[in-house]
Amino acid sequence: MLGSKKKYIVSGDSGIKAQIQFADQKQEFNKRPTKIGRRSLSRSISQSSTDSYSSAASYTDSSDDETSPRDKQQKNSKGSSDFCVKNIKQAEFGRREIEIAEQEMPALMALRKRAQGEKPLAGAKIVGCTHITAQTAVLMETLSALGAQCRWAACNIYSTLNEVAAALAESGFPVFAWKGESEDDFWWCIDRCVNVEGWQPNMILDDGGDLTHWIYKKYPNMFKKIKGIVEESVTGVHRLYQLSKAGKLCVPAMNVNDSVTKQKFDNLYCCRESILDGLKRTTDMMFGGKQVVVCGYGEVGKGCCAALKAMGSIVYVTEIDPICALQACMDGFRLVKLNEVIRQVDIVITCTGNKNVVTREHLDRMKNSCIVCNMGHSNTEIDVASLRTPELTWERVRSQVDHVIWPDGKRIVLLAEGRLLNLSCSTVPTFVLSITATTQALALIELYNAPEGRYKQDVYLLPKKMDEYVASLHLPTFDAHLTELTDEQAKYLGLNKNGPFKPNYYRY
Amino acid sequence: MLGSKKKYIVSGDSGIKAQIQFADQKQEFNKRPTKIGRRSLSRSISQSSTDSYSSAASYTDSSDDETSPRDKQQKNSKGSSDFCVKNIKQAEFGRREIEIAEQEMPALMALRKRAQGEKPLAGAKIVGCTHITAQTAVLMETLSALGAQCRWAACNIYSTLNEVAAALAESGFPVFAWKGESEDDFWWCIDRCVNVEGWQPNMILDDGGDLTHWIYKKYPNMFKKIKGIVEESVTGVHRLYQLSKAGKLCVPAMNVNDSVTKQKFDNLYCCRESILDGLKRTTDMMFGGKQVVVCGYGEVGKGCCAALKAMGSIVYVTEIDPICALQACMDGFRLVKLNEVIRQVDIVITCTGNKNVVTREHLDRMKNSCIVCNMGHSNTEIDVASLRTPELTWERVRSQVDHVIWPDGKRIVLLAEGRLLNLSCSTVPTFVLSITATTQALALIELYNAPEGRYKQDVYLLPKKMDEYVASLHLPTFDAHLTELTDEQAKYLGLNKNGPFKPNYYRY
Amino acid sequence: MLGSKKKYIVSGDSGIKAQIQFADQKQEFNKRPTKIGRRSLSRSISQSSTDSYSSAASYTDSSDDETSPRDKQQKNSKGSSDFCVKNIKQAEFGRREIEIAEQEMPALMALRKRAQGEKPLAGAKIVGCTHITAQTAVLMETLSALGAQCRWAACNIYSTLNEVAAALAESGFPVFAWKGESEDDFWWCIDRCVNVEGWQPNMILDDGGDLTHWIYKKYPNMFKKIKGIVEESVTGVHRLYQLSKAGKLCVPAMNVNDSVTKQKFDNLYCCRESILDGLKRTTDMMFGGKQVVVCGYGEVGKGCCAALKAMGSIVYVTEIDPICALQACMDGFRLVKLNEVIRQVDIVITCTGNKNVVTREHLDRMKNSCIVCNMGHSNTEIDVASLRTPELTWERVRSQVDHVIWPDGKRIVLLAEGRLLNLSCSTVPTFVLSITATTQALALIELYNAPEGRYKQDVYLLPKKMDEYVASLHLPTFDAHLTELTDEQAKYLGLNKNGPFKPNYYRY
Amino acid sequence: MLGSKKKYIVSGDSGIKAQIQFADQKQEFNKRPTKIGRRSLSRSISQSSTDSYSSAASYTDSSDDETSPRDKQQKNSKGSSDFCVKNIKQAEFGRREIEIAEQEMPALMALRKRAQGEKPLAGAKIVGCTHITAQTAVLMETLSALGAQCRWAACNIYSTLNEVAAALAESGFPVFAWKGESEDDFWWCIDRCVNVEGWQPNMILDDGGDLTHWIYKKYPNMFKKIKGIVEESVTGVHRLYQLSKAGKLCVPAMNVNDSVTKQKFDNLYCCRESILDGLKRTTDMMFGGKQVVVCGYGEVGKGCCAALKAMGSIVYVTEIDPICALQACMDGFRLVKLNEVIRQVDIVITCTGNKNVVTREHLDRMKNSCIVCNMGHSNTEIDVASLRTPELTWERVRSQVDHVIWPDGKRIVLLAEGRLLNLSCSTVPTFVLSITATTQALALIELYNAPEGRYKQDVYLLPKKMDEYVASLHLPTFDAHLTELTDEQAKYLGLNKNGPFKPNYYRY
Repeated sequence: MLGSKKKYIVSGDSGIKAQIQFADQKQEFNKRPTKIGRRSLSRSISQSSTDSYSSAASYTDSSDDETSPRDKQQKNSKGSSDFCVKNIKQAEFGRREIEIAEQEMPALMALRKRAQGEKPLAGAKIVGCTHITAQTAVLMETLSALGAQCRWAACNIYSTLNEVAAALAESGFPVFAWKGESEDDFWWCIDRCVNVEGWQPNMILDDGGDLTHWIYKKYPNMFKKIKGIVEESVTGVHRLYQLSKAGKLCVPAMNVNDSVTKQKFDNLYCCRESILDGLKRTTDMMFGGKQVVVCGYGEVGKGCCAALKAMGSIVYVTEIDPICALQACMDGFRLVKLNEVIRQVDIVITCTGNKNVVTREHLDRMKNSCIVCNMGHSNTEIDVASLRTPELTWERVRSQVDHVIWPDGKRIVLLAEGRLLNLSCSTVPTFVLSITATTQALALIELYNAPEGRYKQDVYLLPKKMDEYVASLHLPTFDAHLTELTDEQAKYLGLNKNGPFKPNYYRY
Repeated sequence: MLGSKKKYIVSGDSGIKAQIQFADQKQEFNKRPTKIGRRSLSRSISQSSTDSYSSAASYTDSSDDETSPRDKQQKNSKGSSDFCVKNIKQAEFGRREIEIAEQEMPALMALRKRAQGEKPLAGAKIVGCTHITAQTAVLMETLSALGAQCRWAACNIYSTLNEVAAALAESGFPVFAWKGESEDDFWWCIDRCVNVEGWQPNMILDDGGDLTHWIYKKYPNMFKKIKGIVEESVTGVHRLYQLSKAGKLCVPAMNVNDSVTKQKFDNLYCCRESILDGLKRTTDMMFGGKQVVVCGYGEVGKGCCAALKAMGSIVYVTEIDPICALQACMDGFRLVKLNEVIRQVDIVITCTGNKNVVTREHLDRMKNSCIVCNMGHSNTEIDVASLRTPELTWERVRSQVDHVIWPDGKRIVLLAEGRLLNLSCSTVPTFVLSITATTQALALIELYNAPEGRYKQDVYLLPKKMDEYVASLHLPTFDAHLTELTDEQAKYLGLNKNGPFKPNYYRY
Repeated sequence: MLGSKKKYIVSGDSGIKAQIQFADQKQEFNKRPTKIGRRSLSRSISQSSTDSYSSAASYTDSSDDETSPRDKQQKNSKGSSDFCVKNIKQAEFGRREIEIAEQEMPALMALRKRAQGEKPLAGAKIVGCTHITAQTAVLMETLSALGAQCRWAACNIYSTLNEVAAALAESGFPVFAWKGESEDDFWWCIDRCVNVEGWQPNMILDDGGDLTHWIYKKYPNMFKKIKGIVEESVTGVHRLYQLSKAGKLCVPAMNVNDSVTKQKFDNLYCCRESILDGLKRTTDMMFGGKQVVVCGYGEVGKGCCAALKAMGSIVYVTEIDPICALQACMDGFRLVKLNEVIRQVDIVITCTGNKNVVTREHLDRMKNSCIVCNMGHSNTEIDVASLRTPELTWERVRSQVDHVIWPDGKRIVLLAEGRLLNLSCSTVPTFVLSITATTQALALIELYNAPEGRYKQDVYLLPKKMDEYVASLHLPTFDAHLTELTDEQAKYLGLNKNGPFKPNYYRY
Repeated sequence: MLGSKKKYIVSGDSGIKAQIQFADQKQEFNKRPTKIGRRSLSRSISQSSTDSYSSAASYTDSSDDETSPRDKQQKNSKGSSDFCVKNIKQAEFGRREIEIAEQEMPALMALRKRAQGEKPLAGAKIVGCTHITAQTAVLMETLSALGAQCRWAACNIYSTLNEVAAALAESGFPVFAWKGESEDDFWWCIDRCVNVEGWQPNMILDDGGDLTHWIYKKYPNMFKKIKGIVEESVTGVHRLYQLSKAGKLCVPAMNVNDSVTKQKFDNLYCCRESILDGLKRTTDMMFGGKQVVVCGYGEVGKGCCAALKAMGSIVYVTEIDPICALQACMDGFRLVKLNEVIRQVDIVITCTGNKNVVTREHLDRMKNSCIVCNMGHSNTEIDVASLRTPELTWERVRSQVDHVIWPDGKRIVLLAEGRLLNLSCSTVPTFVLSITATTQALALIELYNAPEGRYKQDVYLLPKKMDEYVASLHLPTFDAHLTELTDEQAKYLGLNKNGPFKPNYYRY
């Protein structure tokens, strides 16, 4: 559970209000704040790249209409009013965003083509609660092309791209989401998705567990017809395992968060790039020659270390797990305790999934101009609260960058107030989102079509063969040519020619 | 089962007679050739470093005594004759080798110290069948220090270091092994270990499964008292899984081959270095600018690719598994089919665990001076047999290096006749052997002390906690300092402060 | 002169009007456009990081005063009006920027301390024409601390940071510069620096050659008292060499552009980072697995290739120089002609210093979504003009990012309209500017103090010993500890213990 | 004999007696020891690869003829006896070696073809003194094909490959060299080359300066007809610069040692590989996680550091030159003084060209099992002599590997007794030798054909254009495709389309 955990947070105008429940947080669902940002969004609406004059951003800005969407009467061009979005007239702009996203999500497009004939989701009634972005739209339209009916709400009150929501509504999708929902709006939207006259969902696609929770709480009978839940967030998965443990999970659930392909891209490959991007955009620092300590050598830590080493930084690693520690050694990093190097390093990066990894005591001992940031989990890793004391002065020097100044003039540079650097201060490439969306689509197909008894009331990892299939759909992006086993070779290895190719414990 | 499989073979003067049974080989145990080399040996006896004038090698050479050890009457200084080695008088030389090995195996020495007080193997009667080298001797003496009684035979007819066997015999270990055993000798030695008046083993430590097989065949009743089997080779593990599948496994067995630490060291880290070493020692080639195709991107392939890329080679990869293929792409390698690049590459390296990956057709199309070698599995990957045709001329240009010459003068450079390059032409660092030996010791302790019912008649992976312990014992070598969880952190993460730290599906 | 050339350009609001004269441009000085951006600026005013809400940027924005500074009557707090800046009242904000810059320019601060006692520039009257930024201010105040009098103008009509100019004026520096000068303003400011009653410069610090040109043209007699010119830009150096060749150079000039330390930082080390930063900020692309062709393997190309290779891209190189080509091979890059790979690559990067390296023909053959950008020189490398034809549609998708769309729908992504990516779309770390400024300071000290006859009317490289000194002043940043030669070793090597340590032809 | 044959230097049975004169050695030529090994030799005679059963080695071994070649009467098949070699009958074996070398030296073969028509060396009478190996033979036969007459002696008493010398003699070359010359033999052979009735050399090709010295001393009048000297060793070049400084150089000399191509290959690229090879062959150590200090960050140090970093070692650097020190920092290495890390490192590598870099004091403080070796220069860098004290025990554990044992049991592992590791314990690829030989051939052509006055009585670097030509001849090896300038581009850059492409101070 260490090092590999990672979660996505999105900043709103008034700052991030992210919150991820974890082991020691006995959240009560109906009291929890709902303005939660769990997933990063596509680049075009990332808050951290406000210098990008995407057309989306520009026309969004002009829609300064303050009327609540709930109070508006809107119809799409076909006369339907089964949706609630900011402004249906923005549909054309949103359509353009979707078309651009389609170009960068060839796997979903391929899926549409390959599976379209047989309509593997014919009869599926999917209720979804995710970020509403162009990439999500490509997913929804793919599900639709495969035969499914969909109803959708946003999993985050800030992350909806209004134009995309409008485009979806215009195309006939019942979408209930806009940017800047209130908490009440949030649950209202979800309710509008599930509480429909004459329509009952039989599949759930969730991101964070709020939709699942709402149905559990309000419409438990609905589960009788539900074939399964697909959940992609760490938090949502955690909740599902808790339900399962408590014997309360009443349908099969698929944990797509831990599929190999998704994990490697969300953590290792994506962070290898975003650590550099996040640091550069916020501080314009030079990496060469800098001394860096990376706390945690899971996938995220491995990615950060590899990138910084390649850029000429001198990297130290801290770890609690001896196996990961040994890997750090063999990969060429000095394994230290944080105290040993805290006085000398130029940058401190946390990637542990743990809390209070960087304490006030550490912060007190850092040298002047030391940069402190978090790539790991939520905002617990650095004890930022401990810096809110009278003797320290905070100075906001840029968006996402604070100088915290000690009485003797020493200042440390705190990024994103200790929240996730890569999500607050860099962007997530569409390619990564494509992998996630493809994984979700395949999980839905699998659960919906699985023969009776294949899945019980438990939480499952995506079958390896589907994991492999997601990967194979993304190979053409790289003009990569896979080799096929001959019959003789397949027999020799005892493998099916179409996979799966590895035992379950294989570590990649 | 791909890419990650790897096996060790040792060459004798008269060539390697290695043979690894795999899926399609229905071997009958009592007919199979026994002169099998399965594991690599320590550097001091490696056939590929005959330029090293280790003292061991030199005094070995002088012992040109042709009498069979079975016909000799030997006693150690305490009067015991319960052993059979080449020459008990070489004990002193062997002791020196053991002492040197001890310096490089700090984990076993630490284990002796830490566990000695409680003698966790008190009462254990271990029969072992492994390579007999200085490193094995350190393992045996550690087991003894922990309270066990041991009897030992060699798992390979060529690999015994006679001086070390003598030193063990002199110290009172019943050892039955010498370099150059006949097939009959091989089984005789094993039999002498198990067929003893008044002594019955209760633990088995096997490497390749021959010992286990012998007991199954000759003394099945012995299993009533046996608490478990520890097996470390791919082949032996494969046999155990077959037994288990067939319902014939009558004691718990521990598959130590697939422990995380061992796998990473045997495959990724060791091969990252030995691919360079093996190529350099045999061909003295320059790596910079060379075009290389690596077949297979499992741990071995990953290690080979990383090393060659770092040395300035241009590396192409072939794969059958789309996930590994995607990893190759993200790591910066062009994923191709072998046919696409076979005409242009300077080096072909197989790391697949498969057979006939490089066919005669490929070989026909390679360019002049192309180097072909195998890092993967046995000698099946390159279809060497297809080169034994009249129109091709073989020219032995060095030990382990053949030029195969086509009628038009084109020559390819075949290394180690397609057997494993890293074992035939480079050496295995003691550090790697130390990890294996420590893993074996811990597996024996675990199986021997496990409460009734923890292990059934099945094949188990080493418990993660012990895997982590093996790693932790090797950290001091790197002056590496592990961080400990605070109570608060452990609670937050829901972990025990002493581990295990990861879920079972964690991929490292 | 290839590959290693690099120049800096700054974009103004209305687009970049950069222009660098080169071999084939017979510019006449008095006709040339003056709105030239030659040097990159510090991060805080970089046009490419408008998302950074530096305090400077924010208070700048509020000063929407449209009166020309030339028409204002301003005095500093000491009553002086020998300056012309936007608004003297912004001095306090500028001082804060300067203080922050001081923290990051320890070499200049060390120089102040070390050389202050002796005032090596006592009596020096320096007229300067450079970008006016916080870093320049640190340089000017250092020169002043060393004994010099300074008068200063801007070398670029857009690049002046008004607050910093105000702070300098407040401190008593005669500064004539503001952001948004007209061409007439530009020359007026320069003239106000040199045409002063009762003050004649004896040293020139120039960046681009405009100041030097102005004095040549208007006040040639002034050169009688001038001890030397220090010039740091490629363009300015080129002009000086032309003057020297034509026998018209009448004072010694120091080419600080080609000092080892400056070159390596401006080119290799800085570009190694800025290629990633520039691509990421503009496109949010993922580097892993991407196919990239880098045109030119000089220092800039080497930096780009190393960074992209480390991020998992597959990199091809084109070169005209066989030595650099061989280096590319040995460093692990396929050396190709652009035509060979143009259809398959995802990114094209030019780093040649040449023109028309990427032609319309190449652009026509690129695949959909190919990204095209220039890291090399000016905007000549990509034939952007050839894309201004009716059948192609240009779509501005972000600041600095255009989609150029072919009739069949194919689009290429053109960054910064073919101008320098790293300057348009990323930033230059203060550390790099620190090296440049230190080099300038030392060159001034050297020229001013050189004994008669050491320098003739020619263009000189910075003496190696001073180059080494610049490097040594920056080592403390990395907590780097230099080893000193013993007397015996110095004698053995035939070296002075204080350097210089290498022959002139040494290549580093 | 193998695909990538290689090279050379040189251990004798009783160890290497290499000696390089440097600044503080006022050697008197006629007193200096002559059994000097200055250059490495081909692998086939390398003492460190005695496991290679090259046919050459084997037939050499069988020629246990103890008669001095000087006392033998030998004729080649054409009746000539103008040579002195070990055994003319070995010619056939030597011819085979030469033919194999030809395959791997395509640049010289291309030179034969390209320049053959015009015979640019027609009339040249070249006297040479170099190592006599297959690669040298390819050079000599190339020179001959270009029109030159050659006479040749060995520059090292141990390095001659007798079979190759025989093959050259059989082909009509007057060769005077054998393995195992006495000092008297050495000078006698040189004298036989120059002191010939009716033949006077007009070109000198020297390696170490002994031939040049002999002519200076014995036949100074000969210089009247000599057009130039080509010298390739550090030592020889040093002597030439001393002669030049003293005004005693009476013909032009070409320093080919410092050509760009040769330097990069001999130092950076070759050492990047040989540091790994040398350490592996001698110690079988694992690189991953090891702490290494590299003394000196010139080209050799850069190569060593890059390779070890890539293999997962943690590398520290020491430097005396601040510029190289700053490079080390930016490349990601901690710059330290040796004392700071000497207690903790696992390996110490010297690459300084200096003396007493590692002192007894350092050696005393190293930890147990620390490996110490020299990649830099001669055997002065490690103060090996200081270890020859009674309290320390030396134990030879392998060829080229000594354990030096302190009274408390601590042992350090000293490689090659402090002589050059890469030459004693690894090999030099033929590709590197090919570059050197091509450079020599081009330098001879240049000096021989230069118009009167181009070269004066001074030491010159190889003209850049020829340096570029050497590189271009080696590009086909990598299937590398050079781009050509268009006329327009060449004009823009002010360059000739055929080069040279860079200013003299360009640093590559």
